[in-house]
Amino acid sequence: MATCSVPLSRLARSLPSSAIRDLLRLVDRPDVISLAGGLPAPDLFPAERLAEAASRAVASSGRLGPPALQYGTTEGLAELREVVRTWSPARSADDVLVTTGSQQALDLVAHALVDPGEVVVVERPTYLGFLQAVAPCEPRVVGVGSDRDGMRTDELEERLRSGLRPSLVYVVPSFANPSGATLSDERRRHLVDLAERYGFAVVEDDPYRELGIDGHPPAPLGTSSDAVVTVGSASKVLAPGLRVGWAVAPKPLREALVRIKQARDLHTPTISQAVAADVLGDGDFMASHLATLRDGYRTRRNALSAALARAFGDALHIDLPAGGMFLWACHPGLDAAALLPAALAQGVAFVPGVVFGTGDEAHGLRDRFRLSYATATPAELIEASGRLASAVGEVRSLP
Amino acid sequence: MATCSVPLSRLARSLPSSAIRDLLRLVDRPDVISLAGGLPAPDLFPAERLAEAASRAVASSGRLGPPALQYGTTEGLAELREVVRTWSPARSADDVLVTTGSQQALDLVAHALVDPGEVVVVERPTYLGFLQAVAPCEPRVVGVGSDRDGMRTDELEERLRSGLRPSLVYVVPSFANPSGATLSDERRRHLVDLAERYGFAVVEDDPYRELGIDGHPPAPLGTSSDAVVTVGSASKVLAPGLRVGWAVAPKPLREALVRIKQARDLHTPTISQAVAADVLGDGDFMASHLATLRDGYRTRRNALSAALARAFGDALHIDLPAGGMFLWACHPGLDAAALLPAALAQGVAFVPGVVFGTGDEAHGLRDRFRLSYATATPAELIEASGRLASAVGEVRSLP
Repeated sequence: MATCSVPLSRLARSLPSSAIRDLLRLVDRPDVISLAGGLPAPDLFPAERLAEAASRAVASSGRLGPPALQYGTTEGLAELREVVRTWSPARSADDVLVTTGSQQALDLVAHALVDPGEVVVVERPTYLGFLQAVAPCEPRVVGVGSDRDGMRTDELEERLRSGLRPSLVYVVPSFANPSGATLSDERRRHLVDLAERYGFAVVEDDPYRELGIDGHPPAPLGTSSDAVVTVGSASKVLAPGLRVGWAVAPKPLREALVRIKQARDLHTPTISQAVAADVLGDGDFMASHLATLRDGYRTRRNALSAALARAFGDALHIDLPAGGMFLWACHPGLDAAALLPAALAQGVAFVPGVVFGTGDEAHGLRDRFRLSYATATPAELIEASGRLASAVGEVRSLP
Repeated sequence: MATCSVPLSRLARSLPSSAIRDLLRLVDRPDVISLAGGLPAPDLFPAERLAEAASRAVASSGRLGPPALQYGTTEGLAELREVVRTWSPARSADDVLVTTGSQQALDLVAHALVDPGEVVVVERPTYLGFLQAVAPCEPRVVGVGSDRDGMRTDELEERLRSGLRPSLVYVVPSFANPSGATLSDERRRHLVDLAERYGFAVVEDDPYRELGIDGHPPAPLGTSSDAVVTVGSASKVLAPGLRVGWAVAPKPLREALVRIKQARDLHTPTISQAVAADVLGDGDFMASHLATLRDGYRTRRNALSAALARAFGDALHIDLPAGGMFLWACHPGLDAAALLPAALAQGVAFVPGVVFGTGDEAHGLRDRFRLSYATATPAELIEASGRLASAVGEVRSLP
């Protein structure tokens, strides 16, 4: 085993409050190729089309001025809610609440559904941003195992049978962060069935849904049950800087979300909403843009996985994702958190798997790595793989 | 007394959760001239300059793409934090946290500073949005009287001497919503002195500061003490649709605010931040734009107050504000909440004073009206005054 200049326990302790922030800081060092953040590829932003939409939004007029500039309702701009309906399981625009990024949707749903001491079930590994959103509600977080087909719903059912009574179960069902896994159609049906049988809400966080590299994921869980809240985002298909997300929820819950959001920020910036409505609602443009995105991420995923295979051979196990932004890798016997300082010294950043676990269960993820192929260019991804291999060689050769 | 088709008690009960939202809905009826909302004048938006800034922001580039489109840090864009420094009591850009509108700053400050059962002091009348932001923290809200010179700090001192121990005191010190009052220089010094002596935080909510019609307000409280958190906004000087606000706070509190915000929405839309930084940072443009704004609001204020004087004579007492967006009026003996349905039937909306009080104290505001002159044109303001007088005549003539 390597020496460990960042003790695991200390890293884990510091995470709940500052993990994403600290990750965003790692990417600021110009000598570091970052596979750490989940930042979309800058060269794939539809910047021209967004600029056109921004000009149009500010120039448009209404009785109270350009809707993009004036105060709006908490629920969101009518045009955007209508467009989101077509991108989500919503049956009507009324089902849609526009949020300030999907992070806010997670924050609102957590505060509406979870009281202190209640059980929240997540996948192991799970998305950090949700753990941060739910933490102020003081839940008991329980991890359920997952594999290439997503959450092990058989394991969940066993826990339910043994008396576990969660308020909600949180899943990232398509091309998950961090695992890249996609919940199978069979397990989707199973999860919805369990939700209805045991009376819990499913929070379906689906920001990567349109980024299928090897085909589309199964239909969203939200289409089949009122026990599901579907959370979506324009961040991965347009640009995260807009901070446009949404929650699709049945009426009583949606009204609770609106009340909480109103006190939080009144409403999501109308300028962002108008831009998102314009571009997401342009079907021809989006068809072509999504094809470009999928091609771009396919090239990157393949470049990184091939380079890692060349650099590591069989030592590194990679779960090749069918879409999204992340490779989930495992180097048996290697402590990924302990490797991080050496990797940064070599000029490459990643996120140790332990970050994505909950409590003691996190320990089981310590030989795991989340490697994002979204931000760097294919050439940088190849260079990064070499640097990572050098860092591993370095820590392995230490006494 | 008039008949009362909306019972006061019912109106008051429904307010904490839905007041601003319901007010925003009132303005949607095209036959109603709304003096209810606090929406800036649509004809005074600097739409062209904002459009220019939006195009520039999306076209600008960085290592990770246009900063306006990419994820950013929770603290905010460096350029905007630097510009806000010059618009606020901040000593350095580091003191500034960018928020999703000033509403979010109030939400964050409330959650960082107030635990259940703790005392929060507000002016009577106070801003509704703060009451909504602080409500989830379950404080005991105590109102302290105010007059034309803002909060009665002598009354506050008396309460402190009698043992009141607030966690924070909330004031809108310049051209307040709803009273239009401006806290005098002497009371500002007194309030800061009390804060330091009794160990509470002052939350200075200052969105109207630049809208002085008859001159500038005294220096912000935040310049004189670390016990003060200053909250500001681009909503009234540029456009509310950007949802760009900020909090200027000493380091330990600021770090707590950042942690809460990160879980709430990761960061404020970078597109809004880039636009605000560009325009607020353009000194020549802002000098001319603020002169236009002040002229525009002066014309409106004068049109409304003159028309009300013609329509009501001495029956309506008006506190003429020296800036901002609101006339605070009193019609002794008239129940403003009871008047509202008749006023809406006549095609004019306003906000009954009782909305801005807390608990039982609200009763003392029942003959008060908040009349916004910001949104309607001068001609509409004159028409609205006539409609309001008709509504009063109607309810007065009921058996």
